[in-house]
Amino acid sequence: MSGGTGIGLFGFGNIGAGVVRTLTANREVIRRNLGLDLALRAICDIDLETDRGVDTTGITLTRNREDIIGDPAIPIVIELIGGATIAKTVVEESLAAGKHVVSANKELMAKHGPELARLAADNNAHLLFEASVGGGIPVLTPMLTCLRANRINRILGIVNGTTNYILTQMEDTGAPFGDILADAQARGYAEADPTNDIEGYDARYKTVVLCSVGFGKRVAVEDVYCEGITRITTADMENAARMGYTIKLLSCSENLEHGVAARVHPALVPLSHPLANIRGVLNAIYLEGDPVGPLLFAGQGAGPAATSSAVLGDVIALATQTIPSTRVDRHEPAGIIPMDEGEFRFYIRMNVQDRAGVLAEITRVFGELKVSIESMRQNAVNGDSAEIIWITHPAPEKALQDSLERIRALDCVRDIPAVIRALKD
Amino acid sequence: MSGGTGIGLFGFGNIGAGVVRTLTANREVIRRNLGLDLALRAICDIDLETDRGVDTTGITLTRNREDIIGDPAIPIVIELIGGATIAKTVVEESLAAGKHVVSANKELMAKHGPELARLAADNNAHLLFEASVGGGIPVLTPMLTCLRANRINRILGIVNGTTNYILTQMEDTGAPFGDILADAQARGYAEADPTNDIEGYDARYKTVVLCSVGFGKRVAVEDVYCEGITRITTADMENAARMGYTIKLLSCSENLEHGVAARVHPALVPLSHPLANIRGVLNAIYLEGDPVGPLLFAGQGAGPAATSSAVLGDVIALATQTIPSTRVDRHEPAGIIPMDEGEFRFYIRMNVQDRAGVLAEITRVFGELKVSIESMRQNAVNGDSAEIIWITHPAPEKALQDSLERIRALDCVRDIPAVIRALKD
Repeated sequence: MSGGTGIGLFGFGNIGAGVVRTLTANREVIRRNLGLDLALRAICDIDLETDRGVDTTGITLTRNREDIIGDPAIPIVIELIGGATIAKTVVEESLAAGKHVVSANKELMAKHGPELARLAADNNAHLLFEASVGGGIPVLTPMLTCLRANRINRILGIVNGTTNYILTQMEDTGAPFGDILADAQARGYAEADPTNDIEGYDARYKTVVLCSVGFGKRVAVEDVYCEGITRITTADMENAARMGYTIKLLSCSENLEHGVAARVHPALVPLSHPLANIRGVLNAIYLEGDPVGPLLFAGQGAGPAATSSAVLGDVIALATQTIPSTRVDRHEPAGIIPMDEGEFRFYIRMNVQDRAGVLAEITRVFGELKVSIESMRQNAVNGDSAEIIWITHPAPEKALQDSLERIRALDCVRDIPAVIRALKD
Repeated sequence: MSGGTGIGLFGFGNIGAGVVRTLTANREVIRRNLGLDLALRAICDIDLETDRGVDTTGITLTRNREDIIGDPAIPIVIELIGGATIAKTVVEESLAAGKHVVSANKELMAKHGPELARLAADNNAHLLFEASVGGGIPVLTPMLTCLRANRINRILGIVNGTTNYILTQMEDTGAPFGDILADAQARGYAEADPTNDIEGYDARYKTVVLCSVGFGKRVAVEDVYCEGITRITTADMENAARMGYTIKLLSCSENLEHGVAARVHPALVPLSHPLANIRGVLNAIYLEGDPVGPLLFAGQGAGPAATSSAVLGDVIALATQTIPSTRVDRHEPAGIIPMDEGEFRFYIRMNVQDRAGVLAEITRVFGELKVSIESMRQNAVNGDSAEIIWITHPAPEKALQDSLERIRALDCVRDIPAVIRALKD
C-alpha cells in the first residue's frame, strides 16, 4: 500500500490483525464512500514472526517505534498495545510528534485520558478512542455529536462481553461459575488470567470513560466502586428468574445535581428492561438524556472485526476532519458521591435456623435501621436450616450494610452468601 | 437571545416548540460542553397567535420568510414545516442564500434529497437531517462517521411509532385495529388522517433515507414496496404469538451484490430477535455491517423532546464544523431488485371447507409451484369451515402469489384473509 493517508499501527495482536484485515477488505468501500485512501505504512510490534493470516505486502514491519513516530508521511497512529505502560509512552511520543492518535485502550484512557488530551491539544493533534468502550458499537461519538444538546443523566452498560457470556451461560445451563469460566477460557472468550474481566476492572475503566465523555466530568478509577461476578451462584440466578429478574454485571453512572455516582457490580435487572435481553458476548449501553429520553445501543463489544470498525471510524474522522471534540482535559473533577451514600434495592440470601422467632429477630434489625422489606420468601429447608430470600425497598447502602453486620451476628443466622443490588428504575 | 450563532426556525408547531424549549433549557449545558452559544433569532410560521407554552422573548416572530432568509446574522436554518411543498421552497431558498439547513423532513429528503444536497454543495452549505429517521435516536450520523469503514449489508427498522403503538396495543389488549386506532387518535399518538402512518408511507420515506445514507445508493420512493397494517387482525397476532413471533411493521433494506431490495410491510418477527422487544411508540434500527456485525439503536422515534435532540445535534455539528459528509447527490441509482424477485417465508391464513381431500388439493398447488411448507396447523372449525395456518419455507414472492391465486380459485377454499411475510434470519 502506498499513497493516500499514511497510518502507523502499534500492536499487531488479534485486534491489530483485524484492523489490517478490514483495511484490506474494505479499502474500496472506504474510497467510494469518502474519496479517501487509507494507506497502512508501518506496523510496530515486538513479535514480527507469528503469522497473523493477513496480507502485509508493502507494509513496513518493525520493532523500532521511531519507524512510525519519526516518519513524516504518517500523520495518524493507531495504538492497540493495551495497558498503560508501553502504550502510554507510544501515545505520548506520537502526540508530541504532532500525530493524531486512535486508541482502543480503556485502561490508558481511564488512567491518563485528561493529560493525554492536553498533550494532544498542545501539539495540535487529536486523540480519539471510540473503540475503548463497547467495541464496535457507536457510543462515544454519538454522545459527542448527535446528543450534544442533551444533559445526559444516567448511563447503564453491559460493557464486558466475557462476564456477560459467563452469566448468560450460567443462567442457560445451570452450571456453576467455575465450570463456565473454564469453558469460556477454552473457547477464547476469557483470558488465561481472567481477573481483569471477572473482578470488574475492565468495566470500571470503561465506566470512567463513559462518565468523562457522557457527563463531561472527570472521575478517577478509584472513585468507581467495583465488585465482580465471582460470588454469583446459579441458585441466585434461579431465585432472580423466579422473581422476574436476570443478573448482569452493570456499569452504572449517574450524573446527579450534587455529584456523580459511578459503580460496577452485579445487579438484578428486570426481565422487561432492554438490558435484560443483552445476552452472551454482546454489549449494550443504555443512557437517559434530556431531552432525548432513554436510548439503547447494542452490538458486539469486542473482537477484532467489531473493534476494527470503531478504530477505522476514528481514523476516517481524522482523515476527513470531522473530529468530535474530546477535550477531556477540560473536564472538572466530578464531586463523587460515595457508595455509602447510595440507595439501592437489595436481594439478600441468608441461611438461618429453621425455628420459630427467627423472622422476628431479623426483621427487628432491618426495622431499627429503617431498611424496609419489599418481599420475603422462604426458599428451601435442609435439615434444621432454612434459606430466606429478601428483597428490600430502596435502602441506603450504609444502613443495609450495618443491618447485615448486625444480622450476621445473630445466633439464628448461619451465613449470608449473597447480597446483590437491583437496578433502579 | 442575542449574540452567538444565529439560528432561524421555519415551522412553529409541536416539534418547533420542542426545539425552542430545549434551546432555552439546555443553553447552559451546550455552552459548557462546547463553548458554543446558540441564539434563536427568528421563527417563521403562518400561525403566530397560538400559545406554544414556550418563552419567545427576544425572538423575532414573523410570517415573512425573508426575515430569516435575508438575515445575514442567521447562518443556520431549521426546517420543521414538513411535507414537500412549502418546506421545499424554504430549504431551496435558504441553501441558495448560502445558509446551512437542518431538517427533520423525511418526505422532503426521500423525494428531493439528492437535488437539495447538490444545491447545498453548490452554495458551500450543508444540509443535515438526522431527525428525519428515528427521531432522537442517533442513526444517520453514526452510519456516516463511526461506521464509515463498514459495508452495511442490511438495515431493518421499526421507524414508525404510531403503527408500532397500534400493533403493540392490539397484541396486549386483543382489541381490533379500528378500536386501537381510534384510541391512539384520542391520545395524540395518531393523526386525524392516519393514512401516512398506517399505510406505511412514512416508513417508506424513511426507508429511502436509510438506503441513501447506509448504502450510498439512490432509491426512489416508488422503488420501495409498501404495505400497511390495516389488514392485521388480532387473530393473526395470536397465531403468531403461539408460534413464537410478534408482528411488526418493518422497514427492510438489503444491500446485495446485484442490487438493493427495499420494502415496508408487516412481518412476523421471532420473539428472540432484538426488534421483537421494541414496543409501544419506541423506534429501533437494526443493521448489519461488515466488519461491525449486527447493531441495534433504540429509543424515542418521535415527539418534540426527542426530535429536538437530533435537530440540535445537527445544529451543533454545523456550528462546530464537525459535519459528516452527506453528499447524497453523489450516490448512484441503486439497481432495484423488484419485489417479485424477493424470497420470503410466509404466514398464510385461509378458510376452507372442512372435508377430506382439501389439504391434498392445496398442497398440490404449493408443490407444483415449488412453495415448500414448513408447518401447517388447523386452527379452528366453525360449522363446515376450517381455518388453516401455513408457514412456508423461503419461497419466491412470485411463486407464492401465483400459488395463492390458484388456491383462491379452488372450490374448497373460501378465502385467504392473511398473507404476512416473516423476517429473514
